[in-house]
Amino acid sequence: MDGIDHLADERNKAQFDVDAMKIVWAGSRHAFEVSDRISKLVAADPGFRKDNRPMLGRNELFKNTLRKAAYAWKRIIELHLSEEEAAKLRFYVDEPAYTDLHWGMFVPAIKGQGTEEQQQKWLPLAYKMQIIGCYGQTELGHGSNVQGLETTATFDPQTDEFVIHSPTLTSSKWWPGGLGKVSTHGVIYARLITDGRDHGVHGFIVQLRSLEDHSPLPGITVGDIGMKFGNGAYNTMDNGVLRFDHVRIPRDQMLMRVSQVTREGKYMQSDVPRQLVYGTMVYVRQTIVADASCALSRAVCIATRYSAVRRQFGSQDGGPESQVIDYKTQQNRLFPLLASAYAFRFVGEWLKWLYTDVTQRLQTNDFSTLPEAHACTAGLKSVTTTATADGIEECRKLCGGHGYLCTSGLPELFAVYVPACTYEGDNIVLLLQVARFLMKTVSQLGSGKKPVGTTSYMGQIEHLMQCRSNVQRAEDWLKPSAILEAFESRAARMSVACAQNLTKFTNPEEGFAELSADLVEAAVAHCQLIIVSKFIEKLLQDIPGKGVREQLEALCNIYALFLLHKHQGDFLSTGCITAKQASLANDQLRSLYSQVRPNAIALVDAFNYTDHFLGSILGCYDGNVYPKLYEAAWKDPLNDSVVPEGYHEYIRPLLKQNLRTARL
Amino acid sequence: MDGIDHLADERNKAQFDVDAMKIVWAGSRHAFEVSDRISKLVAADPGFRKDNRPMLGRNELFKNTLRKAAYAWKRIIELHLSEEEAAKLRFYVDEPAYTDLHWGMFVPAIKGQGTEEQQQKWLPLAYKMQIIGCYGQTELGHGSNVQGLETTATFDPQTDEFVIHSPTLTSSKWWPGGLGKVSTHGVIYARLITDGRDHGVHGFIVQLRSLEDHSPLPGITVGDIGMKFGNGAYNTMDNGVLRFDHVRIPRDQMLMRVSQVTREGKYMQSDVPRQLVYGTMVYVRQTIVADASCALSRAVCIATRYSAVRRQFGSQDGGPESQVIDYKTQQNRLFPLLASAYAFRFVGEWLKWLYTDVTQRLQTNDFSTLPEAHACTAGLKSVTTTATADGIEECRKLCGGHGYLCTSGLPELFAVYVPACTYEGDNIVLLLQVARFLMKTVSQLGSGKKPVGTTSYMGQIEHLMQCRSNVQRAEDWLKPSAILEAFESRAARMSVACAQNLTKFTNPEEGFAELSADLVEAAVAHCQLIIVSKFIEKLLQDIPGKGVREQLEALCNIYALFLLHKHQGDFLSTGCITAKQASLANDQLRSLYSQVRPNAIALVDAFNYTDHFLGSILGCYDGNVYPKLYEAAWKDPLNDSVVPEGYHEYIRPLLKQNLRTARL
Repeated sequence: MDGIDHLADERNKAQFDVDAMKIVWAGSRHAFEVSDRISKLVAADPGFRKDNRPMLGRNELFKNTLRKAAYAWKRIIELHLSEEEAAKLRFYVDEPAYTDLHWGMFVPAIKGQGTEEQQQKWLPLAYKMQIIGCYGQTELGHGSNVQGLETTATFDPQTDEFVIHSPTLTSSKWWPGGLGKVSTHGVIYARLITDGRDHGVHGFIVQLRSLEDHSPLPGITVGDIGMKFGNGAYNTMDNGVLRFDHVRIPRDQMLMRVSQVTREGKYMQSDVPRQLVYGTMVYVRQTIVADASCALSRAVCIATRYSAVRRQFGSQDGGPESQVIDYKTQQNRLFPLLASAYAFRFVGEWLKWLYTDVTQRLQTNDFSTLPEAHACTAGLKSVTTTATADGIEECRKLCGGHGYLCTSGLPELFAVYVPACTYEGDNIVLLLQVARFLMKTVSQLGSGKKPVGTTSYMGQIEHLMQCRSNVQRAEDWLKPSAILEAFESRAARMSVACAQNLTKFTNPEEGFAELSADLVEAAVAHCQLIIVSKFIEKLLQDIPGKGVREQLEALCNIYALFLLHKHQGDFLSTGCITAKQASLANDQLRSLYSQVRPNAIALVDAFNYTDHFLGSILGCYDGNVYPKLYEAAWKDPLNDSVVPEGYHEYIRPLLKQNLRTARL
Repeated sequence: MDGIDHLADERNKAQFDVDAMKIVWAGSRHAFEVSDRISKLVAADPGFRKDNRPMLGRNELFKNTLRKAAYAWKRIIELHLSEEEAAKLRFYVDEPAYTDLHWGMFVPAIKGQGTEEQQQKWLPLAYKMQIIGCYGQTELGHGSNVQGLETTATFDPQTDEFVIHSPTLTSSKWWPGGLGKVSTHGVIYARLITDGRDHGVHGFIVQLRSLEDHSPLPGITVGDIGMKFGNGAYNTMDNGVLRFDHVRIPRDQMLMRVSQVTREGKYMQSDVPRQLVYGTMVYVRQTIVADASCALSRAVCIATRYSAVRRQFGSQDGGPESQVIDYKTQQNRLFPLLASAYAFRFVGEWLKWLYTDVTQRLQTNDFSTLPEAHACTAGLKSVTTTATADGIEECRKLCGGHGYLCTSGLPELFAVYVPACTYEGDNIVLLLQVARFLMKTVSQLGSGKKPVGTTSYMGQIEHLMQCRSNVQRAEDWLKPSAILEAFESRAARMSVACAQNLTKFTNPEEGFAELSADLVEAAVAHCQLIIVSKFIEKLLQDIPGKGVREQLEALCNIYALFLLHKHQGDFLSTGCITAKQASLANDQLRSLYSQVRPNAIALVDAFNYTDHFLGSILGCYDGNVYPKLYEAAWKDPLNDSVVPEGYHEYIRPLLKQNLRTARL
């Protein structure tokens, strides 16, 4: 707007090499380079404009998303983008669309669950988008409990077909993205029934709409499930409802990699291990953790920049007021979120490694690490998405009243993010899975079976049950060993306490249900330990760039000590630390805030987000917030006329005391 | 839909008299009767339909709000409603509108700050809505810091006028509801300047729009500030932006009850005590606390009913699955919110009494209780609104995926509620005010000055600093005395610890800033104590109705013990209770959940909300959720056509590989 960088002073304060940090954040120079290039390409293209999203009505909004999705695909083809680049482009277009499900769920489902022949038949069509697919699992009555799905696929040996049917209202497919208005096909999950026997839930490729005129095929009732939370947000997506009235599909459209139905209607298991399914879950949840760091860092970037721009109170002798970011109450809420964004980034990176490791082991039929990897990703998915959803809303509040404006970008970011707490496993349900795994681990401790991976700390259970933190001064809390010991002993003791309480119940399942709230807390403690320890491990790597390591150390300590303070009750009640040590941790935390303060803007610059991607006036790079807010206001449709529509019908009669005869 | 009450079994389980509880909740039989009658009147009138709100574009939405506001006024006149009934009607119409500001801020500002003559001139016009007013305080650059407002009102002795002016961009009025498109007048806050001297911020009545054609008067630039968080929600309100270019108003339009400017331009204080302003703040914040209990109870009602309807997992031998409300993890999140709704209701009721008490004292020039009342209301506003905003979102998550649908009512409830955390005092800023008051109270403890009202527990500081809880069994935590002592000693010790740490700083203000995060925590502890103790006091009253008292006792204990568990760290680090006692509290909490479980539906029925007011399919009284969700889906504009708009332009070319020539 005026070409001045209002945050230049802040940027000059930074005590580290921001460009080097950008590479650390991106994960590699290559990843940085691709993200940087593609994000700028999207930002510069008016075809990808998104600032008008909250103002559009549903139909207009959705039509515009269809346009963008097609345009994105066109650009991907024209520019000969690689798969990696194409995925980045869709990411930076930053608008939920049917393509997310096509590429993210439909294609992987066929790859993971289809036979070689099925892959050869369907994948080329999907790769060229000659068919568009969705992922039809969730039903009106069943989300978390996948085994409870009601849709049926009954084999008819006479015609060699499956009959897909929705026997009840609650069996209606409900929620699948891309289903409502766009998908021509879907991978549909249904109970497989052969010869009167129910073999549980399996996946089937079902064509839903005509490839000629897009009308739903006979027996199929399909539509959109209606508006969802927020302006813009997920309302760009056609989450759908779908009912089948005895729809027939050929037998070879059951995804048969793991189990088959023969021509005669015999149900068989293949020799492909079923555990492969869990490999896919590890993959999907790993991407969710990566997305959490992305969403949280966006919110933190906005709140941090605006906290440096915004001034309030503290003016002495008529000088400028204090920058809001200088208030300890602001730092105490904002900087732990900044640290969390980095923490989630690094644990996400590690999960990528874990996925590769698990996959390689699966290929050699080594399933030994799978339960631990599965529990770990489930728990990290839960903990990071919960913290991110809460963190985005906290960032919004940190922006004061203006955070409530759509132009702040934060309302839409929140609304578009929160489903992550529910999809791919409800966060509480997942933590209970983690707890179950922890209880099993604890129960096996005496047996000589060595706990592996992220539970290996349980191997030193005797030490962890009786150790006392030797922190004596605030600075002692800067030692990774002090932090690790505290977090390990807290997690171990909470798990052991739950395990002991469980023994008081004669029926273990009843005990598990009764103590589930405690079990969830133990699972959270375990997951937080993982995140802290992976951050600490990251710091053991070679980290080039002036001052970069020092910043990351400060952030790592903030993350850990903030958690320690927040969950003080856990640490104190288990006797891992004393009240005095908890208080020292808090003192240390405050001085870490002062250390981060001059670097705060540079630390969010390191995310390298374009103004387009951020989509926030409060978070704009140059900090020129107020003129931009003022200008943006006038673009609201309500300002199209000075005197509002409805004045003559509804305001004037009121002012003129003429209501009695008005038509209202 | 089918006339069956799907929650009848739940209602039959109740162990108390629901009708008697309705009266307790409403506050009196009269209040119940009015609410019941008016809410049903609104619900039955199709003119007040609101289920289509999320689907409307901004202009349509706003025009519809104008219609409803006029229609509501018409009905109020036709039915000869009393002031109380009229207010209830606006409340149950449940749509933010300019009338909220007209009645809730503009009229009270004139009443509170205008002289007798000013009231006689302006109030009759406002009462008949011959003028419509807003409250013009917040500016683009100043919200929390009211003393930093930049708009000027310069007295011109030559013409006997004030010149209202916006000297900077950041001085633009920004946020006032009703300003953007509707208000003809506003109480505008501006720096009063006479003869070059700045006398600080004062209120002025300024006409903004022509009463003939509604166009803005010369020198006035006014419009809407644009879309805000959520679908529907506050987008029905024309929050406005306003700039003055040397706008002249007569001298007698300065609100002169407390200070005046004479014809000669002399600035004078009247003998009306300035403290009156604080009386108004007590009033406004008391209504905010009442609103918190209302908003939270709505969300809790929805989540509780749907938790009883929804089943997931736990099916053995093909029987029905378990009701979600039977899971301890669900109870552990839901029941404390149910208890909080009741707790906030009763503390809100008590605040009403406090306001009356303060007002009566002010009339006799007794200002002694004002600082305490002010701190107490500020703190309660902060604590209850924060808990309510978080609680609504928690209720949304407790509804699983379907909570994300607008038809659940929860997204809009959240979006419309969250500003309460920011307006009328940012919640953190308010807690710092409470902390300041607490530090003063602690510092005066030695002086013999007896702490009053909600701080009177500080009078037993010696006892509270060294007492140890004598809880030995879980049931001991049911004793009000055990709970009160724990909460009092926690609050006292946290305040004293802060006060001691403050003495380590040579500059007290620096210390206050440095320790502000701790101070906020101490303030929260104090406010939670107030809520707990007012709930306990409520139980000392006569409470008729079978089983009603027992239910309230259980809820009171849940509220207290839930807080105790959540803030375990505070209680343990200050040594008020032991780890063992904390664990006993948790055991007791679990058994209280079992006690509340059969009464849960009846406890939310006691709120007596109509389906119209709740605005939620998930929360509908008869629990017939799924058919209603299914039917509602088809009303989305996207379902107006089977093949979506944009198919020919953006889907077909993609499927047919014809993108190259498509216009995108």
